[in-house]
Amino acid sequence: MADNSLDVVGIGNAIVDVLSQTDDAFLGAQNLPKGTMTLIDAARAEELYAAMGPAVEVSGGSAANTLAGVAALGGRGAFVGKVRNDQLGGIFRHDIRATGVTYRTPAATGGAPTARCLIFVTGDAQRTMATYLGASVELGPDDLDAELIADAKITYLEGYLWDAPAAKEAFLAAARHAHEAGRKVALSLSDPFCVDRHRESFVELIGGHVDILFANEHEICSLFQVETFDRALQEVRGHCAVAALTRSEKGAVVLAGDEVHVIDAEPVSQVVDTTGAGDLFAAGFLHGYAQGKGLYDCGRIGAVAAAEAISHFGARPETRLDRLVELRVAAG
Amino acid sequence: MADNSLDVVGIGNAIVDVLSQTDDAFLGAQNLPKGTMTLIDAARAEELYAAMGPAVEVSGGSAANTLAGVAALGGRGAFVGKVRNDQLGGIFRHDIRATGVTYRTPAATGGAPTARCLIFVTGDAQRTMATYLGASVELGPDDLDAELIADAKITYLEGYLWDAPAAKEAFLAAARHAHEAGRKVALSLSDPFCVDRHRESFVELIGGHVDILFANEHEICSLFQVETFDRALQEVRGHCAVAALTRSEKGAVVLAGDEVHVIDAEPVSQVVDTTGAGDLFAAGFLHGYAQGKGLYDCGRIGAVAAAEAISHFGARPETRLDRLVELRVAAG
Repeated sequence: MADNSLDVVGIGNAIVDVLSQTDDAFLGAQNLPKGTMTLIDAARAEELYAAMGPAVEVSGGSAANTLAGVAALGGRGAFVGKVRNDQLGGIFRHDIRATGVTYRTPAATGGAPTARCLIFVTGDAQRTMATYLGASVELGPDDLDAELIADAKITYLEGYLWDAPAAKEAFLAAARHAHEAGRKVALSLSDPFCVDRHRESFVELIGGHVDILFANEHEICSLFQVETFDRALQEVRGHCAVAALTRSEKGAVVLAGDEVHVIDAEPVSQVVDTTGAGDLFAAGFLHGYAQGKGLYDCGRIGAVAAAEAISHFGARPETRLDRLVELRVAAG
Repeated sequence: MADNSLDVVGIGNAIVDVLSQTDDAFLGAQNLPKGTMTLIDAARAEELYAAMGPAVEVSGGSAANTLAGVAALGGRGAFVGKVRNDQLGGIFRHDIRATGVTYRTPAATGGAPTARCLIFVTGDAQRTMATYLGASVELGPDDLDAELIADAKITYLEGYLWDAPAAKEAFLAAARHAHEAGRKVALSLSDPFCVDRHRESFVELIGGHVDILFANEHEICSLFQVETFDRALQEVRGHCAVAALTRSEKGAVVLAGDEVHVIDAEPVSQVVDTTGAGDLFAAGFLHGYAQGKGLYDCGRIGAVAAAEAISHFGARPETRLDRLVELRVAAG
């Protein structure tokens, strides 16, 4: 009998990205730390948007980008996250469904508008983000679809959700549902500032509920408050079954008990915009994992998906990633 | 004394573009004639959007794109067009102002939502458009700012506006204001289907009110119901003072009385998306004209601006066009 399970269900903030090109002087003047994500309120979002150059709107959200990546890889995915019933919410809903991802979370009919993330891309391809969480933070345990979670091989959560108290509860409930159904739980740490805000509860969460951890070098060092990636590597062992640690152009390291895999970054002819690199690495890795691939191949698929994401403006894939993977991983 | 006049005021539909990549099979199934613009109602817009792949939202509108181009060329411009006070209207307002264009038309507080144009880009870089005019059609003579028009060297109208009866009146009023102030009036025919819908009134309008006419090969042939570009060339003489006729990769021909200029297309390393080519040709031409350049140079600046537009996804410039022109026209 064929396995009709979903591969991945992602739970995260439902956000529309507002992307614009800018320079370091603008980031400095606006007090935005380059390469990171700052949370902003509605008033600051208005003010910052008014100062922003001409922009492009694209559906985003970290876990939602990952699910769009899973779909572009040919995987079966679902997303859970909250929009408002406004025009930006309609755009988010359309885009995630149009990628082939199941999305059934009802829109909020009152309260804050759909979340948006102002993304400033500098000439060096780095992205600096200011996020107004809006309706996203209204996601709560009642929005979970226990059947969907039980049906998915992996439940994937973005660390950013930890900034919203109700969503935090929703995630803990989702992790319980997943484990009760014998499924895996994965977490992305999302951002060094996010780790700073939630260090203790993240360590507790990872130890108690997370099977697969995604983090980049800055995030994993911040989590364990160590100076070097090498020290972080030693610390992470024993905290979770699998850790996939990304290091930008230096590639990634995947740890699982005594198993260690070093994965080279996939070459890119031109890095245009690093928005979505981590999200798409997770997409590739999780897709491979759901298909029962070995950890090295999971990392390789992640690297190929991340390379596609950074070669264009915006976070979501512009290509059929399954064909790319066939070309670059299956053949390799 | 320095001349502080505006260079160009554009009057047109205030539209947000919704761009997606697709293939010929989709266009066929949806009955969308490739390379043209179809007007759709709200219900059809919903239906077509639901069938559309993941999309990107970018401010558009033909004359608005032209004004964004004028600003990117270093010119002083203003735009007049109607949005609703909704999220897409906010995006349109932000983007046009962020390019440096003056935009003061008050948003509608009721009625139809902000206009959107679903744009399907095929692998051959052609764009096929389906436009829901929404709040755009509520532009009327009361929205005109007579002072702004009197202050601008050129008042530029997009032919698409001719589909909205109140806007049509607004344009005729604007043309009168402009001529009373001793200014020029320019018109773009916009689309062969648009010409089909309004052939007689366009001929009348051009003869009575238009100093500078923009049209592509299909539009000018449709206007005069002739088979060949050569026949159209003979017909257009005498109808207006200046005609700038574009022919895609074959360049452009500019006519003014006995004066004829043949302008080569600017080479492009890769044509990605032809959306905005005509709008940006007009931007370059009008900017040159407002600066008192000769007609050949106006055409050359138009060709450079159009080449930039077709080398990326979306209609508005991604580069400082003034630097490009300096490089390619001033030096050439």
